[in-house]
Amino acid sequence: MPSRRTFLQTTALTSVAASFSPNTLLTATRPAKDRLGVALVGLGYYSTDLLAPALQKTKNCYLAGIVTGTPEKAEKWKKQYNIPDKNIYSYQTFDQIANNPDIDVVYVVLPPSMHEEYVVRAAKAGKHVWCEKPMAVTAKECQNMIDACAKNKVSLAIGYRLQHEPNTQEWTKGLRDGKIGKILMVSCSAGYYDGRTTHWKQKKEMGGGVMYDMGVYVLQGSRLATGEEPIAVTAQQYTSRPDVYKNGLDETSMAQLIFPSGARAAVQTSYGMNMNFLNVTGSKGTLMMEPYSAYNGQTGIWSNGGKIEHPYEVPWQQTKQMDDDAQSIMTKKPMLAPGEEGLRDIKIVEAIYQAARTGKEVKIV
Amino acid sequence: MPSRRTFLQTTALTSVAASFSPNTLLTATRPAKDRLGVALVGLGYYSTDLLAPALQKTKNCYLAGIVTGTPEKAEKWKKQYNIPDKNIYSYQTFDQIANNPDIDVVYVVLPPSMHEEYVVRAAKAGKHVWCEKPMAVTAKECQNMIDACAKNKVSLAIGYRLQHEPNTQEWTKGLRDGKIGKILMVSCSAGYYDGRTTHWKQKKEMGGGVMYDMGVYVLQGSRLATGEEPIAVTAQQYTSRPDVYKNGLDETSMAQLIFPSGARAAVQTSYGMNMNFLNVTGSKGTLMMEPYSAYNGQTGIWSNGGKIEHPYEVPWQQTKQMDDDAQSIMTKKPMLAPGEEGLRDIKIVEAIYQAARTGKEVKIV
Repeated sequence: MPSRRTFLQTTALTSVAASFSPNTLLTATRPAKDRLGVALVGLGYYSTDLLAPALQKTKNCYLAGIVTGTPEKAEKWKKQYNIPDKNIYSYQTFDQIANNPDIDVVYVVLPPSMHEEYVVRAAKAGKHVWCEKPMAVTAKECQNMIDACAKNKVSLAIGYRLQHEPNTQEWTKGLRDGKIGKILMVSCSAGYYDGRTTHWKQKKEMGGGVMYDMGVYVLQGSRLATGEEPIAVTAQQYTSRPDVYKNGLDETSMAQLIFPSGARAAVQTSYGMNMNFLNVTGSKGTLMMEPYSAYNGQTGIWSNGGKIEHPYEVPWQQTKQMDDDAQSIMTKKPMLAPGEEGLRDIKIVEAIYQAARTGKEVKIV
Repeated sequence: MPSRRTFLQTTALTSVAASFSPNTLLTATRPAKDRLGVALVGLGYYSTDLLAPALQKTKNCYLAGIVTGTPEKAEKWKKQYNIPDKNIYSYQTFDQIANNPDIDVVYVVLPPSMHEEYVVRAAKAGKHVWCEKPMAVTAKECQNMIDACAKNKVSLAIGYRLQHEPNTQEWTKGLRDGKIGKILMVSCSAGYYDGRTTHWKQKKEMGGGVMYDMGVYVLQGSRLATGEEPIAVTAQQYTSRPDVYKNGLDETSMAQLIFPSGARAAVQTSYGMNMNFLNVTGSKGTLMMEPYSAYNGQTGIWSNGGKIEHPYEVPWQQTKQMDDDAQSIMTKKPMLAPGEEGLRDIKIVEAIYQAARTGKEVKIV
């Protein structure tokens, strides 16, 4: 049990944690038999504000350890989440995680350029791996990650939170069930204004560029809407801040996807503006989701009748995703969004950059 | 006064006319002093189902004459709208309209390939001219039409019904007033399923192709949203019915517009699917109109508060457009949507076809 003093310190540290029951602080010391122990690798915004809070709510897994290069962060997290010293790693000591039975899953939440290395190292350490999207910078890296996990007989899941959430599942099922007939056109936009200038999202060598980040959501929107893989793309990229987005880094990307059925998608993604909707035109009606990829608040309208609206509080999506994936590991079932799913998106992202660079239609094989 | 028999015959001919007061049948015989006499050239669907009914409701103009190549249509319209024989023309007798004081305005509602000829002939006859959109097939034709009207000192208005209607005017004003800040991105789709195969819309030599027809609406949506003229375009065109849409005729067009401010638009238009929305992303919010270009039912939501919804019954838009334009002529004011406005769209349409054909970005000068 944490002391009252520890609890007070902990709750003072973060307003998010303060809303949880104090007994969630016990998670790190519970036996991992009925729940998987998760180690977060990379303690940036997404780990701090979403994954760690979500791991206080998960039923099938819990926050067992951390990997960070910043001693101050290690100290803060250790106190906040009552993480034992033996479960705290630096990037230098990371591989020793192989010997730690508390850690069942390594969740890689690093900049995209580091995904391949840490997924492969986690796999070699014999740990199941969860990896944030974008899966990696190149399709080749994605394949290496898939191969490493297969070779080491560990599971690999990509952090596609939307595939786990009920609004997305409802519209996807509705489209597959033919609610608006044959899918003909998808319009999908996802963007937010990012005022930062030195984050990895603004650094090409770290896997930056909006098409890798928010762009994956509009690709997911289009692929889930059509139920198909695009065979060719055209694309346009530009920036309103050439001092920040340079050397081929995109602040805004627009792309047009061609699907085998003849369906098309027009997708827009940006770090320069706030936008978020998915419009699907079918032969018998239309689906409009707005927003469609936010952390909550998704709302949808079927033109031929019916509304989609499953409300929940942040970080419900991340909680559900990790509980689903932990359950799949414990029951030895396939991951809902495995490495192959991440690879599909990165293949398209690479084609989009090539199409924008050359001004030509690029086939995807 | 029409006889009871004539009235019954008339109401039996069309359910649209049946909803009007019988005294609207008198319009054709009223003196043209306080209202302009309009002659419709081309009695297809748009004239029959929208313009003629609208001209029974207009206050500043009325249906004074018709020009048709089909004697059966002449007979039917003569009875239905009590049009005197002297105001009924064929395409052979059309130029004699110059001597008819009942006719103040010639409204050209023919296939686009015939617009130039009939607008120029009407101008030479000394009549004011209204011309349906698309204004013509080429920018050169548009310029000839503008020049002919200027030379003959008659007004020229293009049938941009939306520029006259209150929902469009409200969102346009809101955007110009900065309600959502700087305009950054426009997504606009307009299409319907056209099952016909031999209409002029499916004939290249008559000015067919969806980019000319529905495409003009998405261009208007983008231009009104940004308040700017595009300087370059990329485009993609395709068909799901290659037996109908051949030799470069487009069933579906997608285009990406670049505006001087840096704003972009992604537009989609089609004869193969029903779709209709306008999404405008600004630096301070979003506008979603859905539908945005229908004959009625326009509804809009400002993300930062407020709704746009001015309801009315069809054919209110056409009534308002013709009343506005007649008022401008009578008061010697500029047309709300003059020939120059039609020319701007056709320049873009031509650039879009070139971009789709070449696969390259095309600059608009």
